Amino acid sequence: MAGEMAEQPDVLRRLLTEGAPRIRRTAERIAARRPRFVLFSARGTSDHAALYAKYLTEARLGLPCGLTSMTTTTARDAKPQLEDVLLITVSQSGGSPDLVGSTEAARQAGAITLAVTNNADSPLAEVSEFHVDLLAGPEKALPATKTYTAELMALYLFVAGLRGESGEEAEPMPGLAAGVLDRGDSVRRLAGRYRFAERMVITSRGYGYPTAKEIALKLMETSYIPALAYSGADLLHGPLAMVDNISPVIAIVTDGHGGEAMRPVLDRLRGRGADLFVVGPETQVAAASAGFSLPTEGIPEALQPILEILPLQKLAWEVSIARGQDPDVPRGIAKVTKTD
Amino acid sequence: MAGEMAEQPDVLRRLLTEGAPRIRRTAERIAARRPRFVLFSARGTSDHAALYAKYLTEARLGLPCGLTSMTTTTARDAKPQLEDVLLITVSQSGGSPDLVGSTEAARQAGAITLAVTNNADSPLAEVSEFHVDLLAGPEKALPATKTYTAELMALYLFVAGLRGESGEEAEPMPGLAAGVLDRGDSVRRLAGRYRFAERMVITSRGYGYPTAKEIALKLMETSYIPALAYSGADLLHGPLAMVDNISPVIAIVTDGHGGEAMRPVLDRLRGRGADLFVVGPETQVAAASAGFSLPTEGIPEALQPILEILPLQKLAWEVSIARGQDPDVPRGIAKVTKTD
Repeated sequence: MAGEMAEQPDVLRRLLTEGAPRIRRTAERIAARRPRFVLFSARGTSDHAALYAKYLTEARLGLPCGLTSMTTTTARDAKPQLEDVLLITVSQSGGSPDLVGSTEAARQAGAITLAVTNNADSPLAEVSEFHVDLLAGPEKALPATKTYTAELMALYLFVAGLRGESGEEAEPMPGLAAGVLDRGDSVRRLAGRYRFAERMVITSRGYGYPTAKEIALKLMETSYIPALAYSGADLLHGPLAMVDNISPVIAIVTDGHGGEAMRPVLDRLRGRGADLFVVGPETQVAAASAGFSLPTEGIPEALQPILEILPLQKLAWEVSIARGQDPDVPRGIAKVTKTD
Repeated sequence: MAGEMAEQPDVLRRLLTEGAPRIRRTAERIAARRPRFVLFSARGTSDHAALYAKYLTEARLGLPCGLTSMTTTTARDAKPQLEDVLLITVSQSGGSPDLVGSTEAARQAGAITLAVTNNADSPLAEVSEFHVDLLAGPEKALPATKTYTAELMALYLFVAGLRGESGEEAEPMPGLAAGVLDRGDSVRRLAGRYRFAERMVITSRGYGYPTAKEIALKLMETSYIPALAYSGADLLHGPLAMVDNISPVIAIVTDGHGGEAMRPVLDRLRGRGADLFVVGPETQVAAASAGFSLPTEGIPEALQPILEILPLQKLAWEVSIARGQDPDVPRGIAKVTKTD
């Protein structure tokens, strides 16, 4: 896991050089088919990348979007009507039978199908009309890290391509990612505060919310800490009752609309005496109990999730080590999950 | 909260008698407009009813669906393209400014808008083209109970109406609900096992999954227990690592496809020595550590969530009392949450 986390700047660079032209051509061909509705299908870490892409598609393309549910797509009472629908299936391995089966069924029902995977020879890539290759190299650790940031970048470039744009504003990301990873030692010092945590609340809004869900999953996979991820708005609707002065909270604050919408949430959390760890711009970190500042200046809000997750992956890794666990071999998880 | 839980059979009966004809006429008018995509917008408890309706719409109508995100609908880079889209906004109060604003914006962007609320005079009902009234009477307790089951029933009848059906198979539900509530004492005995629980995992698949999310929210609101809800498939993708022989698990097992898909999940949980509490058919309860059996025989899978939530609402209430807390006045929550 540590090795794969460190590869991320190289993986991003490869996508921007080798991957981008192919992604753009794929996007152009799909744009010519004029999809009117976009569905995303994924599980686990890839589902968080799909959620990110859903926000991006809503915001950048103005198209209505949805995340699909495998259980229902495989057991319907009505014939699915998927003309004009683009189905994007995101899967590291491209091997989950439920994703392969539902993608095949959607294609038969008229959907334009696109697979985003790290394996061009996978069954998912095969049954899909279009394919985007993550080019991330084999991922061996059970907790996915480099394929997650690769999925974010590939989906960013794909959505830019649908708008007829090059996505060149993403070019600084590999360098910025390397800079963030170089500051890993400061995360090690911060990890100590969670050694004995019995639960954690993770919150964000907008583009940062998938980051919150992804880090909650990473903390559970590697450290077995019950980590509850909420959008800031949902947190105020009930779960806030659970937060007190011994409940650690991690807030991801993007520099932009999402971060501004988090302001009342952060105020309420501070008001409840929560221990608040912020990942985001320097000014937001300074107003919290602790945090990790990101170089967000001049970086579009939609690209910030690629940086946000990096110190948090490292945090999950460090907390796992501090608790005497092996982050590479979490109990009870298989890399390709065979759900029907 | 206890009083409002007890009202649920009457609320369901009122919807089936006074409400149903109006819901059917509304559905007929909307069906005539031939929506091709359905979006749902909601927060908190109502979001779980929306998730239920999303499954129902996918399965029964074969239409692609999505849950919308307020943050992005209010901050877009592109003009939303919502022709042929039906937007269903679900809100007990009909007063949340973000839901009102985004519904208004969607209507201007061409969407057919339907409000499902418990307040016909609310701003949400006013800005929406169509309205379904829950007729549940004032809900005063902060944790929503009767409006949740009313939302499930109203949305069930609405989707039946879109198919040109009467939904008469729902008629036994008030009587069955009353029978389940009459067995509340057995829930009190079961609540003791969670008095000292530090976390809980709730899981289900298909129609039961919204029930899992809703009971997790209720447990957090009333008892401050970190309760993590996962679809059975997602649980196997990582969070299973967190479950051990001291982690209590509640599984909602519907009698039908969703319950069958839960079988491998239940096997894995038993294999990890989890304390397994099942809500579902008698045979499933018998194979668990504890549970509450439901009269599911002959009841369509899609109607079972209306029964599933009842013993679990009661469980949240009893656990809250057992822990010396006041379920009617959870700390840190307002009934109408004003997020932007």
